[in-house]
Amino acid sequence: MRIARVLLPAPGVPLDGRPPTELRLVAGTADPQLAIDLQETARLDLIAGGATPQRSAELARAAFPPSLTAVLSGGARSIEWMKRLADGPAAATACLAGAQFVSPVDPLVYRDFSAFDEHVVNTWGRANRDPPSVTRQLPIFFKGSTATLIGHDAVVPWPHYVEWMDYELEVGVVIGAGVQDIEPGEALDAVFGLTMLNDLSGRDMQFREMSGRLGPAKGKDFATAVGPWVVTLDELDLDNIELKARVNGEQWSLGNLGAALWSVAEIVAWGAAGEPLLPGDLLGTGTVGGGSGLEFERGLDAGDVLELEGAGIGILRNVVGERARTGYMPVAKKVASR
Amino acid sequence: MRIARVLLPAPGVPLDGRPPTELRLVAGTADPQLAIDLQETARLDLIAGGATPQRSAELARAAFPPSLTAVLSGGARSIEWMKRLADGPAAATACLAGAQFVSPVDPLVYRDFSAFDEHVVNTWGRANRDPPSVTRQLPIFFKGSTATLIGHDAVVPWPHYVEWMDYELEVGVVIGAGVQDIEPGEALDAVFGLTMLNDLSGRDMQFREMSGRLGPAKGKDFATAVGPWVVTLDELDLDNIELKARVNGEQWSLGNLGAALWSVAEIVAWGAAGEPLLPGDLLGTGTVGGGSGLEFERGLDAGDVLELEGAGIGILRNVVGERARTGYMPVAKKVASR
Repeated sequence: MRIARVLLPAPGVPLDGRPPTELRLVAGTADPQLAIDLQETARLDLIAGGATPQRSAELARAAFPPSLTAVLSGGARSIEWMKRLADGPAAATACLAGAQFVSPVDPLVYRDFSAFDEHVVNTWGRANRDPPSVTRQLPIFFKGSTATLIGHDAVVPWPHYVEWMDYELEVGVVIGAGVQDIEPGEALDAVFGLTMLNDLSGRDMQFREMSGRLGPAKGKDFATAVGPWVVTLDELDLDNIELKARVNGEQWSLGNLGAALWSVAEIVAWGAAGEPLLPGDLLGTGTVGGGSGLEFERGLDAGDVLELEGAGIGILRNVVGERARTGYMPVAKKVASR
Repeated sequence: MRIARVLLPAPGVPLDGRPPTELRLVAGTADPQLAIDLQETARLDLIAGGATPQRSAELARAAFPPSLTAVLSGGARSIEWMKRLADGPAAATACLAGAQFVSPVDPLVYRDFSAFDEHVVNTWGRANRDPPSVTRQLPIFFKGSTATLIGHDAVVPWPHYVEWMDYELEVGVVIGAGVQDIEPGEALDAVFGLTMLNDLSGRDMQFREMSGRLGPAKGKDFATAVGPWVVTLDELDLDNIELKARVNGEQWSLGNLGAALWSVAEIVAWGAAGEPLLPGDLLGTGTVGGGSGLEFERGLDAGDVLELEGAGIGILRNVVGERARTGYMPVAKKVASR
């Protein structure tokens, strides 16, 4: 099963010249241009069971709102119904040609781990340094912003305070069932599926911030691209997923999820240690070795087309926007007695 | 106006020996034991306007769900109605003696800044080092977990991977209106109010994580205490709010919001630079100078009673729980070629 979230054309009169749209969860089909509209298919499923038109619409809206977190929070009954609709005949289809993808996930918390030793070695190696020992003792992570997740084909906003724009080739892990304090052996049972993730990074701002030891913030929070699809684990082999990044069609990165130092099971178990992981939460694996321009001192330009591809997961494409010309910058403080 | 979120006793039969409760937003009154139940008062307000019993209940539930983020996301109309109910006669009161406070806020994103130079100087001074220059160039921050916000009187969970448990005396800033790309001069218009915030910290884990440069994560994410009240800005003078922390009744910390190197307006404006701040979002000021046990090498024990007091804001009290005895710990990786 593959799930995405798209803005579909909706009935109604255009306001301010904008044709009305509706946000919907959809399931992928064999035809790349055609998806199953889950809410509308659920409504027809209810009608087939004898529901009244009014009540079937109400129940379908309640069961399949445009939030993967909401549907996954409905537990096994919700996920089973979604799977039955996704695997069944395409009762209500949506044409993806006219649709706009948004992030398929709407997590409460987004954690981004550092699972690939090669990326860590490469980035610390720029300063001729070995990585700190903690990176091989724990799968460390930072928390990203859940307010700026952008979807497939979205333009990447480029804030005024960033000069060096870069991508990061990652896999996103989507939690299906809430868990806490589990062992890695049980962790994959809590995972709904995988998606592609581009941890867009303003390197100059990120490095300034990281010198203060609180981790990256403004250097990352302006946008994270996710999608287009969340693919359920039954369709994937976690030990062997080839990952590629292309910039304007040229391959810049090539890696494999199987090369991770910390497995998906280990990052999920560590995320859930002493605190809950909730349905719909997003965990990034961190950048694969060689999966960023940083590792070979390259940056992006406005207009660059980024494509992150995961075998069996899909291709996440985004275009780098123009840099904002102005904006607020804090004025440095002078402190008398230092 | 002061707003809290409490579990109130609800009608119904106890299940599994637990009396039923209902989560409600309440407004404070002059009587510290009495609050105004906003949803129920809104229902009576609608009835007074001629609404039917059924419809008044539906509308009141829709207007005042137990989520400050939801109410603030309703914009000026929602906030005006809330203020009218909070300032009016207490039509439907809730007794706080039998109520359990939860976090008054339910933000999409929680950013915790580093606004107090004295705290930064003190913590870097432990290693005989000056702070990195970025701390006076930018109000840096990390993002905390929105999944583990606990309320007044809640027991602090102590994870198995933390030895040195500590508190941090902070003020929480609650965003009222969504904003992006503003100057500090406009920033306070976007602030709904202030609350007390205890950035509970497992120091040993935090320092291990910070050596990896992604900032604190497991060392902080297990719990952040917030509340009990969010107090609107019209009742406060941001330049002079005395802040205290007591452990088992003994005063450990004394500071003032007015001593911050970065003002509330500056941290809000930097938070909103190049990305949106959303209604209900939470910003911590960071720890006031001397506002943590870390600064004088003290730790907390299970059973310790923590009280953070902000003049005019309120007292946030929590009890440190017992440390979990077991749990998952990652096994360090051996990497052949380093």
